[in-house]
Amino acid sequence: MAGNSFGRLFKITTFGESHGPAMGVVIDGMLPNIALHEHDIQKELDRRRPGQSDVTTPRSEGDKVEILSGLFEGTTTGAPLAFLIRNTSHQSKDYEAFKNLFRPGHADYTYIAKYGIRDHRGGGRSSGRETASRVAAGAVAKKILEMQGIKIYAYAKSIGGIDGEIVDLSVIEKNPVRAADLKAAEAMIQKINEAKEQNDSVGGIVEAIVKGCPAGLGDPVFDKLNAMIAHALLSIGAVKGIEFGSGFDAAGMRGSEHNDPFGIKDGQIAAKSNNAGGILGGISTGEDIILRIAVKPTSSIAKEQETVTTSKKATKVQISGRHDPCLCPRMIPVVESMLALTLVDCLLIQKSISNS
Amino acid sequence: MAGNSFGRLFKITTFGESHGPAMGVVIDGMLPNIALHEHDIQKELDRRRPGQSDVTTPRSEGDKVEILSGLFEGTTTGAPLAFLIRNTSHQSKDYEAFKNLFRPGHADYTYIAKYGIRDHRGGGRSSGRETASRVAAGAVAKKILEMQGIKIYAYAKSIGGIDGEIVDLSVIEKNPVRAADLKAAEAMIQKINEAKEQNDSVGGIVEAIVKGCPAGLGDPVFDKLNAMIAHALLSIGAVKGIEFGSGFDAAGMRGSEHNDPFGIKDGQIAAKSNNAGGILGGISTGEDIILRIAVKPTSSIAKEQETVTTSKKATKVQISGRHDPCLCPRMIPVVESMLALTLVDCLLIQKSISNS
Amino acid sequence: MAGNSFGRLFKITTFGESHGPAMGVVIDGMLPNIALHEHDIQKELDRRRPGQSDVTTPRSEGDKVEILSGLFEGTTTGAPLAFLIRNTSHQSKDYEAFKNLFRPGHADYTYIAKYGIRDHRGGGRSSGRETASRVAAGAVAKKILEMQGIKIYAYAKSIGGIDGEIVDLSVIEKNPVRAADLKAAEAMIQKINEAKEQNDSVGGIVEAIVKGCPAGLGDPVFDKLNAMIAHALLSIGAVKGIEFGSGFDAAGMRGSEHNDPFGIKDGQIAAKSNNAGGILGGISTGEDIILRIAVKPTSSIAKEQETVTTSKKATKVQISGRHDPCLCPRMIPVVESMLALTLVDCLLIQKSISNS
Amino acid sequence: MAGNSFGRLFKITTFGESHGPAMGVVIDGMLPNIALHEHDIQKELDRRRPGQSDVTTPRSEGDKVEILSGLFEGTTTGAPLAFLIRNTSHQSKDYEAFKNLFRPGHADYTYIAKYGIRDHRGGGRSSGRETASRVAAGAVAKKILEMQGIKIYAYAKSIGGIDGEIVDLSVIEKNPVRAADLKAAEAMIQKINEAKEQNDSVGGIVEAIVKGCPAGLGDPVFDKLNAMIAHALLSIGAVKGIEFGSGFDAAGMRGSEHNDPFGIKDGQIAAKSNNAGGILGGISTGEDIILRIAVKPTSSIAKEQETVTTSKKATKVQISGRHDPCLCPRMIPVVESMLALTLVDCLLIQKSISNS
Repeated sequence: MAGNSFGRLFKITTFGESHGPAMGVVIDGMLPNIALHEHDIQKELDRRRPGQSDVTTPRSEGDKVEILSGLFEGTTTGAPLAFLIRNTSHQSKDYEAFKNLFRPGHADYTYIAKYGIRDHRGGGRSSGRETASRVAAGAVAKKILEMQGIKIYAYAKSIGGIDGEIVDLSVIEKNPVRAADLKAAEAMIQKINEAKEQNDSVGGIVEAIVKGCPAGLGDPVFDKLNAMIAHALLSIGAVKGIEFGSGFDAAGMRGSEHNDPFGIKDGQIAAKSNNAGGILGGISTGEDIILRIAVKPTSSIAKEQETVTTSKKATKVQISGRHDPCLCPRMIPVVESMLALTLVDCLLIQKSISNS
Repeated sequence: MAGNSFGRLFKITTFGESHGPAMGVVIDGMLPNIALHEHDIQKELDRRRPGQSDVTTPRSEGDKVEILSGLFEGTTTGAPLAFLIRNTSHQSKDYEAFKNLFRPGHADYTYIAKYGIRDHRGGGRSSGRETASRVAAGAVAKKILEMQGIKIYAYAKSIGGIDGEIVDLSVIEKNPVRAADLKAAEAMIQKINEAKEQNDSVGGIVEAIVKGCPAGLGDPVFDKLNAMIAHALLSIGAVKGIEFGSGFDAAGMRGSEHNDPFGIKDGQIAAKSNNAGGILGGISTGEDIILRIAVKPTSSIAKEQETVTTSKKATKVQISGRHDPCLCPRMIPVVESMLALTLVDCLLIQKSISNS
Repeated sequence: MAGNSFGRLFKITTFGESHGPAMGVVIDGMLPNIALHEHDIQKELDRRRPGQSDVTTPRSEGDKVEILSGLFEGTTTGAPLAFLIRNTSHQSKDYEAFKNLFRPGHADYTYIAKYGIRDHRGGGRSSGRETASRVAAGAVAKKILEMQGIKIYAYAKSIGGIDGEIVDLSVIEKNPVRAADLKAAEAMIQKINEAKEQNDSVGGIVEAIVKGCPAGLGDPVFDKLNAMIAHALLSIGAVKGIEFGSGFDAAGMRGSEHNDPFGIKDGQIAAKSNNAGGILGGISTGEDIILRIAVKPTSSIAKEQETVTTSKKATKVQISGRHDPCLCPRMIPVVESMLALTLVDCLLIQKSISNS
Repeated sequence: MAGNSFGRLFKITTFGESHGPAMGVVIDGMLPNIALHEHDIQKELDRRRPGQSDVTTPRSEGDKVEILSGLFEGTTTGAPLAFLIRNTSHQSKDYEAFKNLFRPGHADYTYIAKYGIRDHRGGGRSSGRETASRVAAGAVAKKILEMQGIKIYAYAKSIGGIDGEIVDLSVIEKNPVRAADLKAAEAMIQKINEAKEQNDSVGGIVEAIVKGCPAGLGDPVFDKLNAMIAHALLSIGAVKGIEFGSGFDAAGMRGSEHNDPFGIKDGQIAAKSNNAGGILGGISTGEDIILRIAVKPTSSIAKEQETVTTSKKATKVQISGRHDPCLCPRMIPVVESMLALTLVDCLLIQKSISNS
């Protein structure tokens, strides 16, 4: 299984299965001379961990991080940072029932097709638990970005068909679904609870905004900033699509509507609108980067579903483990992390070619 | 400018500016012992080249390919294939007017922000002409895929607000907009012509289907098949978003609706629906891979637009060169090419770990 | 600090400092369906660990490996293998004396030049202890090679000026210096002990032979097999040079002497001599791969040396920690490991392009 | 055939066979805003091209370079530079005789083992002619290094058993073997001529010195500066070994002799000797980088040799084409180029992590 690394100059490699001994991540290409404390990592892991609220899974992993390397007297040295998170709450026997069948919407069938073997306990490597490693590494990336005045926000734009109508970034962490619209948040929670009672799940849309990103990040041609962000975010399980700025609406627009006219604001060149979503020709413009991802409803549902066994017999399955009825709230720190990792990588690449 | 390479084992590197001497591409990681002829490449370049029909730019580049290396007596040797396409029709003086201003919707401003210099002639490296190199390499990838029974189709799903309603793959090359619905094609052409008469442009949606793809391609975690396809397709200029299978509609669905139940068909395991779009957990399922991309309206329009000069003065601009009023028709071979390049790369990766 | 990964398809990433909490390694690109047990790793770590004999350092690290991921019921799944080795015997106060000066022959000065910070405890990341991670990963690579009939031998060819005259592979593990000549081994041990008594250290030459390597590994041009092996082995600290087959002697030879004539042996094409060292044009010939590396004498010596402080004052230093008086014996498993990692990577690359 | 790219941030990809239409190279990761002229490239190609003197092959390739992309009004833009060199002097029929046999010392046999096909005309991709692409790219790298005060020298240290005794860098380009010792040069020329008259060839040693390299280049662990230089130089055909500073002599030294004591010179920290060869712990020290490579005698000789045919019959072969009787003189610009490419890559990596 290749593909467990992400990044060019700021490169992470993750490991760990849901029901194995531990999850972890190594950051190669770390900048030296940055103050870092376990708390910087832990606070982000706490935003992702299960059992935070009624709308998430009742599983309760402590998700305590241990820093294994790369720090000397509280400062990074340039050596690889390695983070370890022990798995403590796994109940592998919950998964015995699924050993010989393929859960719909899951990677069970495709793992067998690819590897001829799979760790059926909790999805193994394809578990959402894998994202703990991403959030641990993302916490470091966020810290680097914040030192440069770059800030990332992500929030539930839509859940179960309920759309947020206002964007108030200050309320995101104040409601369990992480919406940017408190009133919509209540309706979203209700939709989640309804689905849960009906042994079902709901999907949603997560929107992200990057503020303070300098112009000039991203490489033309194949490593366009939007292409790399798309790679990063579609590598998160359950993400079905991504759009930047005007997104799919652009398909119905005219050029004269869509082009963002340039003007002068506070003596600086600034676009008068942002259909571009902060990226032109694959390079950041200096405006806010804006994007949305579509998140499918959780595949693990207690409702009965048709499927087949590994020996090709029709059967039924009910997945009654401890699952999130909606993936969006806990995915939000993961989205921020993948964005942060991508941007730090682009910052380092840009630094290498800049004149100063 | 890094980022001019794409692929891991089947890796292309492109070069060339719109108004420089030539465009080109090198394929490193080419398979040996494959019969290849210049005609295999030329026929795909002809599908992308300007001047094919009334709905495309009247520029007329011959786009003749020369194979510089990697062939011996008509067969590939495993050595890098290099293709050269001379630029013949460039009219650089068309661009003198844009030397000192930033065209809205273009990469002029961001290139300066990134490099401190830009080749203003026809967009230089950010020109759509860069995709000729991709199509040349993609022709080789398509040939490899076809030897394995994998076939890629792309078509205009929507143009200027007109949606195709049926999908008839046999008509795609029989109408100038490359729709899969001949009746909708006529309405699309009309929309394009209207916009053109009004010195404007229209956007659209391109849908792609991969048939015959074996289960098992793509790597879990960061190099999920959908993540790599998203990287590939969002690296094409003007693409604003991508979605797979159910895509953004998944956000409003319940798990019980969205999960594709497994069943048995002709003795084989097969999904009963395809909301997954042919990919689960980042790995191909063996079903059709289905995706859609949003294409913005052409940025170069003859209509007057507001902008600023490089010395920060407000000005107006009309871009009256020879431009496509809609990018979709000529982008379709580019979409197919990027898909093909991604899939060949995944096939080789999969071959390296397979037991046989 | 980039550069903590090695390999293309079979890729390892290492982490850990000599006096930090732990050393470790992640293998990405692991083959599925291979039986693996902690013992497979531990036995190789035991060959590298300190305190094995009188000619090595008396430090005594247990070097117990823990497998954190990638195994399911004793079999690899294709998911990344992660190995953890806790540091238990570090005596950081031994290094307080060196905090403010640059030890000759060590990376103290260059780390400061590069990062502006260094972990002075035991050399931090530049410690020989870093090679424990390589040996853990190498154990897996060796297992894969052995399944294909490929076997790697390395031994002390020369130590302290004493050259081995015969090559008896069966005695390597039966003498503490790991020579392939038992008689020479005794003289080598004596040279080491003499140096040790005089607060000094000795260098040596390690020779390696790969048996059973199929023809066809390695890529022409930049990733020639010899180039990649050189990269691998010169990445081990204290290695000053490498030569293949005839090596530096080739410089004084004529073409008619040096070319290995082809002949037929047992119905197969076989070279009649092996000046090539098993590699022609960067690709394995199927003959034994033979190479030698030069190892400098241990830099840490108890003898007084001149140096400067970090504030540029002249000073003297005696390094009286627990150090190997000769690096060769414990480096031998590291050499084998780096060779094994390189060869597995080449095997996978070759598999991806082969016709079968 | 993968492996036609070299470098991480400053990455070259080469293509072309000896008797195909052209050789070429693409540089991805080029710095913008550097003045560049075809002459900068041509002058280095002229140092490598055949037919320069009596001691090289009488073949006469013009080796005229054409710049295909990446330049705008004489300045680099950050877009990939692509260089094309047409092959003009190939006499493919010279090689008809070798079509069905394996030339000793050449890659004929290993190419068939690897690919199942080979371009027998002049060695195809394994020809020394491939290095023209390296020299073209190296010319750009040298220009970048010179802007930063870094200068590379390479010269014949030994040819046909004759060693240079003095190192006078000013005479290198003033004698046809490129020795740094004019008197030794005469004896070397005589050795070459003797071998040539006897239908034979000679080997040699090339030494290289890098002056002005700042401290801090190279990455610890796997991408040590010496490891990357070894990779670079052993990727040149016919190179059998490499050593840095004290090299293989280190094997017979004591630690107290080998360690370079630090002292203060002109107020700066400086080593009092340079057994390290300018690199400690894989990172440049700021002293001269010094290394030597062993070059085997040319494999193509007119003397009769034993070999076998592709259908496994014993036969004899005389290779009477136009070949260099000693590879060192024309390899010297290639050595400089590979060193320059490696160093620029390391400079960019270092820039990306530096604080300034």
